[in-house]
Amino acid sequence: MSVRIAIIGAGIMGADHARIVSEDLPGAVLQVVCDASEARARTIAEDCGAADISTDPFQTIRRGDIDAVIIASPDETHAPLSLAAIAVEKPVLCEKPLSQNAGECRAVIDAEVAHGRRFVQLGFMRRFDPSYREMKAALTDGSLGRAIMMHNTHRNVEAPANFTGQMAITNSAPHEFDVSRFMLDADYTAISVFQPAGVDAAKTGAPVFMVLETDRGQLVNIEVNNNAAYGYDVRGELVGEKGSIQLNAPVHTRSNGHLMAYERYPSDWRPRFAEAYRLQNKAFVNFVRTGRFSTIASDSWDGYCATLVAEAGVEALRTGRRVNLDTMAKPSLYKTR
Amino acid sequence: MSVRIAIIGAGIMGADHARIVSEDLPGAVLQVVCDASEARARTIAEDCGAADISTDPFQTIRRGDIDAVIIASPDETHAPLSLAAIAVEKPVLCEKPLSQNAGECRAVIDAEVAHGRRFVQLGFMRRFDPSYREMKAALTDGSLGRAIMMHNTHRNVEAPANFTGQMAITNSAPHEFDVSRFMLDADYTAISVFQPAGVDAAKTGAPVFMVLETDRGQLVNIEVNNNAAYGYDVRGELVGEKGSIQLNAPVHTRSNGHLMAYERYPSDWRPRFAEAYRLQNKAFVNFVRTGRFSTIASDSWDGYCATLVAEAGVEALRTGRRVNLDTMAKPSLYKTR
Amino acid sequence: MSVRIAIIGAGIMGADHARIVSEDLPGAVLQVVCDASEARARTIAEDCGAADISTDPFQTIRRGDIDAVIIASPDETHAPLSLAAIAVEKPVLCEKPLSQNAGECRAVIDAEVAHGRRFVQLGFMRRFDPSYREMKAALTDGSLGRAIMMHNTHRNVEAPANFTGQMAITNSAPHEFDVSRFMLDADYTAISVFQPAGVDAAKTGAPVFMVLETDRGQLVNIEVNNNAAYGYDVRGELVGEKGSIQLNAPVHTRSNGHLMAYERYPSDWRPRFAEAYRLQNKAFVNFVRTGRFSTIASDSWDGYCATLVAEAGVEALRTGRRVNLDTMAKPSLYKTR
Amino acid sequence: MSVRIAIIGAGIMGADHARIVSEDLPGAVLQVVCDASEARARTIAEDCGAADISTDPFQTIRRGDIDAVIIASPDETHAPLSLAAIAVEKPVLCEKPLSQNAGECRAVIDAEVAHGRRFVQLGFMRRFDPSYREMKAALTDGSLGRAIMMHNTHRNVEAPANFTGQMAITNSAPHEFDVSRFMLDADYTAISVFQPAGVDAAKTGAPVFMVLETDRGQLVNIEVNNNAAYGYDVRGELVGEKGSIQLNAPVHTRSNGHLMAYERYPSDWRPRFAEAYRLQNKAFVNFVRTGRFSTIASDSWDGYCATLVAEAGVEALRTGRRVNLDTMAKPSLYKTR
Repeated sequence: MSVRIAIIGAGIMGADHARIVSEDLPGAVLQVVCDASEARARTIAEDCGAADISTDPFQTIRRGDIDAVIIASPDETHAPLSLAAIAVEKPVLCEKPLSQNAGECRAVIDAEVAHGRRFVQLGFMRRFDPSYREMKAALTDGSLGRAIMMHNTHRNVEAPANFTGQMAITNSAPHEFDVSRFMLDADYTAISVFQPAGVDAAKTGAPVFMVLETDRGQLVNIEVNNNAAYGYDVRGELVGEKGSIQLNAPVHTRSNGHLMAYERYPSDWRPRFAEAYRLQNKAFVNFVRTGRFSTIASDSWDGYCATLVAEAGVEALRTGRRVNLDTMAKPSLYKTR
Repeated sequence: MSVRIAIIGAGIMGADHARIVSEDLPGAVLQVVCDASEARARTIAEDCGAADISTDPFQTIRRGDIDAVIIASPDETHAPLSLAAIAVEKPVLCEKPLSQNAGECRAVIDAEVAHGRRFVQLGFMRRFDPSYREMKAALTDGSLGRAIMMHNTHRNVEAPANFTGQMAITNSAPHEFDVSRFMLDADYTAISVFQPAGVDAAKTGAPVFMVLETDRGQLVNIEVNNNAAYGYDVRGELVGEKGSIQLNAPVHTRSNGHLMAYERYPSDWRPRFAEAYRLQNKAFVNFVRTGRFSTIASDSWDGYCATLVAEAGVEALRTGRRVNLDTMAKPSLYKTR
Repeated sequence: MSVRIAIIGAGIMGADHARIVSEDLPGAVLQVVCDASEARARTIAEDCGAADISTDPFQTIRRGDIDAVIIASPDETHAPLSLAAIAVEKPVLCEKPLSQNAGECRAVIDAEVAHGRRFVQLGFMRRFDPSYREMKAALTDGSLGRAIMMHNTHRNVEAPANFTGQMAITNSAPHEFDVSRFMLDADYTAISVFQPAGVDAAKTGAPVFMVLETDRGQLVNIEVNNNAAYGYDVRGELVGEKGSIQLNAPVHTRSNGHLMAYERYPSDWRPRFAEAYRLQNKAFVNFVRTGRFSTIASDSWDGYCATLVAEAGVEALRTGRRVNLDTMAKPSLYKTR
Repeated sequence: MSVRIAIIGAGIMGADHARIVSEDLPGAVLQVVCDASEARARTIAEDCGAADISTDPFQTIRRGDIDAVIIASPDETHAPLSLAAIAVEKPVLCEKPLSQNAGECRAVIDAEVAHGRRFVQLGFMRRFDPSYREMKAALTDGSLGRAIMMHNTHRNVEAPANFTGQMAITNSAPHEFDVSRFMLDADYTAISVFQPAGVDAAKTGAPVFMVLETDRGQLVNIEVNNNAAYGYDVRGELVGEKGSIQLNAPVHTRSNGHLMAYERYPSDWRPRFAEAYRLQNKAFVNFVRTGRFSTIASDSWDGYCATLVAEAGVEALRTGRRVNLDTMAKPSLYKTR
């Protein structure tokens, strides 16, 4: 019996999820597309062959013909909708962030704890990316030795018009916050934020450079540069005591022309992480069917941790000082992996 | 309604197809696994959740609960089983080669012509590989200019024990024969075969180097080296009058250790072409559902052409001479792309 | 008439300079090798065909048959010997650092100012490396846009036994301090230093990660990891508003073996920067012959700047705080480029 | 005492040699620049500080103030001038080819045999290129196992206006003929030549693809494509029974811009082989000084072998047939390495 999925939010990410569910996800059917705009919901529903549409997300979550929910609506709705799904005990694949507010993340955690199990798989899809998977494996198999540092680079062609200075920390970097923490199997204890001065004032979303420290003594640094101009480029290197490992982006060809050998960058994140999204969603369907939470996926706790460090990063940016992090005690529910 | 698939042959490729159908192919279900060995059929069927097993391929093809067939049994069975499927008008995804014998390929073509449409999609999966897709696109969009040459390298770690000298031509090179012909949109007119001498006699499957000429004046060369020792490595470069484009293998990480920066080779073809197989099979399901043959997939005619050049290659190897190719007239059925 | 050179210090770097002078430096002859150990001086002198040896560096500098001096003796002798050469108005190629002490660097600057011209070319050879040269050119020609950040990585196989914790800052990083400052055409205003904790206590020379800020608003970060284990690896990336450029190390071949494609790292800095040393020394000979100081070489002022930031870095490491830098006014002698 | 060198021929290569001798060749002085055009000779002489000029090459060779000769005049003068130098027992660094005519090469060999020693070092500079050196070392140290095949690619941006169809074989490929033969330590026994048809008739110098066989059973193939449009690009791969090794071109940086990561090609051969020329000329000076012929440089015999295969290649191109090669017996003078 196929898992019947409702997608809430029919923007870029919602459309992408709808396409994945309808084309690349065995064992799942796209039952409902829900969006505040009925027209937008209808467009996606027709493109992807959804059975129905809706404009009411809370009602959608409660529908009897819905087994699971993918939340891809605006950030501020993520926590309320996740709570609604938990209330009716339906699994959720929630786009990141769980919330921009750590307190709100804690509310989701509390709800799961009250129900005695996890419902929310968080859309930090990079954990499923084959490059990060190989990086994790190299650490686990011992070939890198003990991890010392992780370097991250996150570059976009151009920041969206609505980007503010701190959104590099709150909207872009959480991917690195989560995947580095996952990679190092550690929690952050401090964050320092640096920002180049004199950057073109006409541009939104100035670059930031962050240095994070973990409770296992490792350093994590992250460049977020949303106006990198040249392409969408995510890099990572994990440095261990015996060697290091770097992510390769999927680049299918190398061309020769115009006195250059060249490889292309995508203009946004989707080609770079297409396989990660597919595998993440496959893991979610498996979770819905079997009740077994993916051993690598992010959960509410991970979402809370990412938001906590983002909040500290904003303070570090504002004050120019290193900010220490104080993570609350981890409920036993999240220690079960 | 899902497409109900029977897989005939439960060897390495059959097992791989079974896994793809059961895990990664929306809209399809694995209905029957058929193999001469009941035990082998049962193992795969249980691993992949198939509804039934069988030891009789011809009966399997005729079953009422089977909509389409994947043929992954030994080479000599490909044509007879394809003919059986055509007889009952069921679509076939047939592992390459269609037949080792060009005459037998013509029989399949004749059967399709008699039925007035194509049934057989041939498993030259490389046409679906993202790297070859980008290569084809670079030619189509004009950035390479007119195609002049295509260089191919096909290396395996070690030839199977049963490999004979000419199997590099009849069993390995057909992938290059097909994909180069597809890339250049041309037919072969001649083949020359060279073979290094003095290779370790204890090894089966000596390397060959082939030079092919096309009716559009292009050159195609192919190294097949099944005892390359170091890894499974397929390379290709298409040279045009304005530039060239090379295949990149999917390599997810780069490691640093032991005074080296290194990237890993797989030990066989499956990781290299995993995405190609998935996309090929997805195109096959789409063909079964819609009746529209994939615009890029190989068909019986392509299978005939690959076998024809393989036969000529064997003669060229035996005689040490360039052998000219004489392709029969192409039935209009195959001109419809 | 060839330039007659005395090399002071017959250790690793002195021996390398002796080989360069004798084999690869047209217009120069190796006249004297001077070392506290007569035996060591003699060995190098014989290997490289020097006319004479000495154990007295000050006397060597004053000899009538010496036109110029290369100082490759221990760090603490660099400033006194440079001053001695300035006193007799002989050009000096001095290995870095000019001094570990900024005050002592100022004394050399004062001496040059008193003589009204520059005598000391400092051995920050990276400025001559073809990779850094291309990086600088990409900034100058405008293709990168305005420079925002520079990332540096400096890794050795293993720290020498006598390395202390802060020597990563005082002995390794000065190369990056100098070349980044040269690249960005800016002065440092602050430095923050981070250090991974929990690193194997048996190892000398723990890794450090530094973030520097410049008076033009740029960020420079530097990883120094002298126990990287896997190889000598120097990397750099200059990030501009339009794109970025990365250093490639000279790697002459790519090998395939053992399920890997691999490229080798050298075990120390000499193969990586062999061409930089040759070109630096050629520029020095040209300076001696023509009196024109190289437009790209480092001078005493650059040496002072590198030492100043190293001193601040040591304080930042000790205190765990960002340390601001206060550079003295630059004498007009050093503004002439 | 410096070696006094005369350069005969002040074209592109002659100018390059003059620059190398005057700037990068310790132990040598540029004594005379000789060219049929006095003006051209004067220009180079002044640029490079030569002591004198001449328009008479034969007289130049005999001058008492000349110790050695570099021949960079037109191809047809190479053998006569080499013979003139041998007659007065002066060492020669002769640009390739020794002659376009194998018979004329034999005359040079006869002259050297008559004098009982070698005088001519042939300008197949690739043997000195660090990439080819590492390739040779990988074969010698056993890590590749027995050599089976060597693949070569030789691409230029655009063929000169005076290029004819066969000049790809007679003027470009000799570099590959020589370096592959050197690499494999073998002699050629046959050559087959293929040529793409339908190439733009307005272009001179159509591409050729050659397959050569050696007396040790190895295959060598060579693409020469002098209208490759995109850049000067020389590639090589040596395939052994245990692995393979590929040449890397010296590329100093990698840039990111315009949705691409790119590395630049030079527009001609000089940047690619600058280090090879410098090392070759250094070896020549060492030969002049010590009388010891370089263990890796090409000599007259090598020049003869390259011309012999070029002549066979022209016949193979004309007839469309494999042409067998018949090398004369090698005089003992050339067996001494």
